[in-house]
Amino acid sequence: MSDAWLHQPVSTPDESAIAAARARQGALTKPPGALGRLEELAVELAGLQRRERPRLERVRIVVFAADHGVAAEGVSAFPQTVTVEMIRNFARGGAAISVLARALDATLEVVDVGAASEMESLPGVVSRRAGNGSANFCRRPAMSMEQLRTALDAGREAIGRAQADGMDLFIGGEMGIANTTVATAVACAVLQLDPALVAGAGTGLDAAGIGHKAEVVRRALARHREELEQPLDILRCVGGFEIAALAGAYIAAAQAGVPVLVDGFITTTAALVAVRINPSVRPWLLFSHHSAERGHGRLLAALEAHPLLSLDLRLGEGSGAATALPLLQLACRLHGEMATFAEAGVSEA
Amino acid sequence: MSDAWLHQPVSTPDESAIAAARARQGALTKPPGALGRLEELAVELAGLQRRERPRLERVRIVVFAADHGVAAEGVSAFPQTVTVEMIRNFARGGAAISVLARALDATLEVVDVGAASEMESLPGVVSRRAGNGSANFCRRPAMSMEQLRTALDAGREAIGRAQADGMDLFIGGEMGIANTTVATAVACAVLQLDPALVAGAGTGLDAAGIGHKAEVVRRALARHREELEQPLDILRCVGGFEIAALAGAYIAAAQAGVPVLVDGFITTTAALVAVRINPSVRPWLLFSHHSAERGHGRLLAALEAHPLLSLDLRLGEGSGAATALPLLQLACRLHGEMATFAEAGVSEA
Repeated sequence: MSDAWLHQPVSTPDESAIAAARARQGALTKPPGALGRLEELAVELAGLQRRERPRLERVRIVVFAADHGVAAEGVSAFPQTVTVEMIRNFARGGAAISVLARALDATLEVVDVGAASEMESLPGVVSRRAGNGSANFCRRPAMSMEQLRTALDAGREAIGRAQADGMDLFIGGEMGIANTTVATAVACAVLQLDPALVAGAGTGLDAAGIGHKAEVVRRALARHREELEQPLDILRCVGGFEIAALAGAYIAAAQAGVPVLVDGFITTTAALVAVRINPSVRPWLLFSHHSAERGHGRLLAALEAHPLLSLDLRLGEGSGAATALPLLQLACRLHGEMATFAEAGVSEA
Repeated sequence: MSDAWLHQPVSTPDESAIAAARARQGALTKPPGALGRLEELAVELAGLQRRERPRLERVRIVVFAADHGVAAEGVSAFPQTVTVEMIRNFARGGAAISVLARALDATLEVVDVGAASEMESLPGVVSRRAGNGSANFCRRPAMSMEQLRTALDAGREAIGRAQADGMDLFIGGEMGIANTTVATAVACAVLQLDPALVAGAGTGLDAAGIGHKAEVVRRALARHREELEQPLDILRCVGGFEIAALAGAYIAAAQAGVPVLVDGFITTTAALVAVRINPSVRPWLLFSHHSAERGHGRLLAALEAHPLLSLDLRLGEGSGAATALPLLQLACRLHGEMATFAEAGVSEA
């Protein structure tokens, strides 16, 4: 398996579709600019979808799930068994992202990229395991290069399946006990930040727990410091399977010409890595929300991202992106269906 | 016609439904609090709808339209004819709120509370005219007490029609050239603010235009200063028919036990007046967005309101509230449909 595909170029937004969409916005029956960011979104999506009137009818949500050896360091409020239990909850329709996908008429797929134990076969769950969880990166690299390639490829393959079904927009989600610790390590390695500035409460740590989590990440970064120059090495040493899969999925979505709506702290870490691997991915990433997790703001700033919502969400699973999806859909409907001044016989300013 | 109905008491939120909803939130398969404001919304709506699992399926949007004599002072970027032209655009489905109502499967009604000229009969448009537009409040009171009662009652009647159809939530919108000037006058009178702090761009004034608008409002407030003590007198002297109708609708909705989602600057002014007339209305008002119109933040602060969105919207028509509606609906779906830890067999923290 090669990782050459990661570096394949991505097309740039279509300037003529952007110009046409902008002209249309100026002709619609409202004061110019009165729909604020909804206008910008419609114009941005026009450029990405290469059509004057973008549409967001076929939305694919893929949740990548995996376990993390670093959970053994006591960095999560929940036991590791929850990863597999939550995969079952996704499949049975009881998790937040299951409810959201149903409410939004989006298709939901779950990919087991490497939970700690193998699971029974479940409808809607694809098994693409890179291992029985990653290794504890306080002691050794989180994964081998081969495992990393498998995880990245799991992301690419998920995009391939979604493309075959038809996809106007991609939302990636994640599940994996201890994965805010992993994301903190990756983010700190990429941005060269002190873990104390990034480590947050995750699923519900108190101040002492957050301090311990930062210390665990600091130890891991010190251990691997010679190998943390390149984004792929960062993923291999201190990453996780689902974060690698998300990075692969984001790159593959951009290469396929499909816009991405990024969720919260962990997915934004994956987005940051994707952009470091292949900078031409950046225009394809839209950002849904500013989460309550401590480090998220710094990641968003590093990506010059201005998310749509700030509702103190910190669940993951892709739930924040799904919650923001109607804003994008309404932006498209307004852009596509409002009458122009000429059509409606309304006087202009 | 009497206005005694305005002061009829409103029930308080149901504490036992709130407690049951809060307990349910704590049992759902997510870290406690991880859905942030979506959890709070579900609990708040549970209290208002007096049921553990609130629902927002039947949403009524009513746009109140009227004209304003103060338009003669040159305070709007658009000519007064646009009010009637936009009523036609609402009826034909080409306006922003028409598109949003369709996309959201909400019912839309337009009430002509007093455009400058009488219109042909149109489907979906109810005629309940308090006059051929209000008077220019720089010269005389905007309306008579009888006209004010007619406008307030137009709001109450709209709620009555919606109740007959079944309504889980009410959204009020407005249309009326020069109505940001009117809202500025009302807001400044209620909160005793300098118009320069509240007057904004409206449909697109430049700095000189905004300065002129503030001066027009200052002149009107000075002219009527002896009569601006009570909220009804404020509406009568410097208000407008659609703002009065909105205030009446908000009060009637609360009296009927129906939660309200408030839109932007003008509707928030109406909400402020409604709360000053009948303070027990306040818990029934949810706030959708912080608009780009200059004075909106001060009104929200006066109401201790924390809106959900901030997307630089400044269109009115109820469009910001409609845009935020999916957030409330998703909050209810998550609350009602997620599995509990026990149901899903997921381990707790």
